[in-house]
Formats: sequence, structure tokens, C-alpha cells
Amino acid sequence: MHMNVERLKVNYKTLEEFKKFKEYGVQELSMLEDLQENIIEDNCDSPFYGIYYGDKLVARMSLYERSAKYDLYFDPPQNYLELWKLEVLPDYQFKGYGKRLVEFAKGFGVPIKTNSRMKSKEFWEKMDFHTVPYDMERDLGQNPLVWHPNEVKDKKPNS
Amino acid sequence: MHMNVERLKVNYKTLEEFKKFKEYGVQELSMLEDLQENIIEDNCDSPFYGIYYGDKLVARMSLYERSAKYDLYFDPPQNYLELWKLEVLPDYQFKGYGKRLVEFAKGFGVPIKTNSRMKSKEFWEKMDFHTVPYDMERDLGQNPLVWHPNEVKDKKPNS
Repeated sequence: MHMNVERLKVNYKTLEEFKKFKEYGVQELSMLEDLQENIIEDNCDSPFYGIYYGDKLVARMSLYERSAKYDLYFDPPQNYLELWKLEVLPDYQFKGYGKRLVEFAKGFGVPIKTNSRMKSKEFWEKMDFHTVPYDMERDLGQNPLVWHPNEVKDKKPNS
Repeated sequence: MHMNVERLKVNYKTLEEFKKFKEYGVQELSMLEDLQENIIEDNCDSPFYGIYYGDKLVARMSLYERSAKYDLYFDPPQNYLELWKLEVLPDYQFKGYGKRLVEFAKGFGVPIKTNSRMKSKEFWEKMDFHTVPYDMERDLGQNPLVWHPNEVKDKKPNS
């Protein structure tokens, strides 16, 4: 099946589609407000990437590039991607949409860090992500999982 | 009703009780491992506080003191508490356990920051928490909510 990953534009249509996703939150509300108040223009790039089935958005994720300066996960410290709000609408699950999005993110060739719900751990392991040792000051309520190209290592605790 | 908030000890009994909570994650697994490998002693203090009904743990939360140096939420920057994994077991909800825990946290007299699921926003607003303007670099997939004593202000975006 054709699964084109697109960078999503901020516009009223996209924001309406976002309401169907469970992890709709302050981030989306803030984008809506910025659009309404003309702080951002219609159709400017968002941090979201998604897959359409016909004209319906059925899967999405958010990506943000963190600079090496703030890297607390990898050794040596380096630019990496934070991935969040990976979600596939219920009727479209188990068809490879999530995998396609994760592969797209890996295509940038830099390490990726995400935060998993315990129930999704199996999915992330299939995607070759692994858990890192928990560090309370850094991770608090998160369950961090990372993936990295071969030459990169996990940061050692307290190093 | 008697609702004593206790700081929870790390021991096998507590960790077994934690399994009943939905937000069981890497943090709890890490505590279990540290106990098994004698990295921490039995009965040492954990970052969790909870309420028992008889000998059953029915509500819990985790608290961590962030130093002013890392404060990105308040003005002026100051020590504050990060609160996460606030959860009441299903049969004990809507009886005031969550409120009791939040009031306990407020008793430390410093600002509090938490991350809400959208569904719990109403609860947090009843607790006098409010949302802060979303800042992607800081908040990513979070929906931050804060409470602070009167003299403290929210940090302005990009200040």
C-alpha cells in the first residue's frame, strides 16, 4: 500500500483532523490560537508528520531536533530527534502506519529519543528502540526509549 | 475519613502494590532492580507519597524538588516541585484522595508543576492549577499545569 509521509501544514483542516487523536493537548490548542490570532500564517510547517488515507489523516507523530548542547541521552553528546505523539487512528492500526512513520524518522540519520507508555513497549522494541537506565532527575515520569545509528552509545548514568 | 499521607518506603511490599497502578513504568522497575541488587537498602525513602486504606495502598503520587537553576516555569526562577504519577485506584476515586495528595504537596509552600492528561484538566483546575503558554522546546509532548503561592508569577514566554 502507498504510505506517503508528509510534513503537516498548520491550517484549520489539519487542526480539525488532530481532534480525532487521543493525545490532542496544549500543543495543538496553542497552534490553533496562533493561527486565529495571526501569530502564524495559514499553511506554515508544523513539527508534525503524518500519513493520509485518501484525504483522511490516519497517523501522525511530532519531531523536534534537540541540539547536542542539551543532549542527556547519548555518548558522545549530539544532535538528536525527540519523537512524541506517535499515534494511529484505531481503524488503521496494525497495518504498518506506525512503523512507516518511525522509519521515516530514522531516515534523518540521527539518534531518536521517545517516551513510551508501558503498553507500547513491545512496538518500540520491534522498531529496535531500547530502554535506557532510569535517571530520576532527568526522566521523572517518563519511560525513555532510544534508537541510534551503530556508532553512537547510550550515555552512562551519572557521566 | 482518615487520610494520612505517608512517604512510601522502597520495599518489596510497596513495589508489589505499585503494580496495581496504571502508570507503573521504568521508574518502578528501576527501584525493584536497585533493591534486588542491593544498590539501595530495603525501606529507604522513595520519591512517592501515598494514602493507605487499611493496609492497601489506594492513592499515590511522586514528587521531586527541582532547583531554581533549572526552573523554566516561574518568575523569579526558584525551587519548585515536579509532581507526577498522581493516581487513585478505580474503586477509590471521587472520594477526595487525589485532592488530599495535592494539598499535601502544596503544604511544602513552593510552586508545583505537573503534566496533565487532557481528561484530568478539570480536576487540576479545581485544585487551582492553571495551564501555562505552550513552549515547544521546553514542553514537547507535555501539557504543563502549575500552581504557585500568590507572590510568584508564571515565566513569560521567551523571557
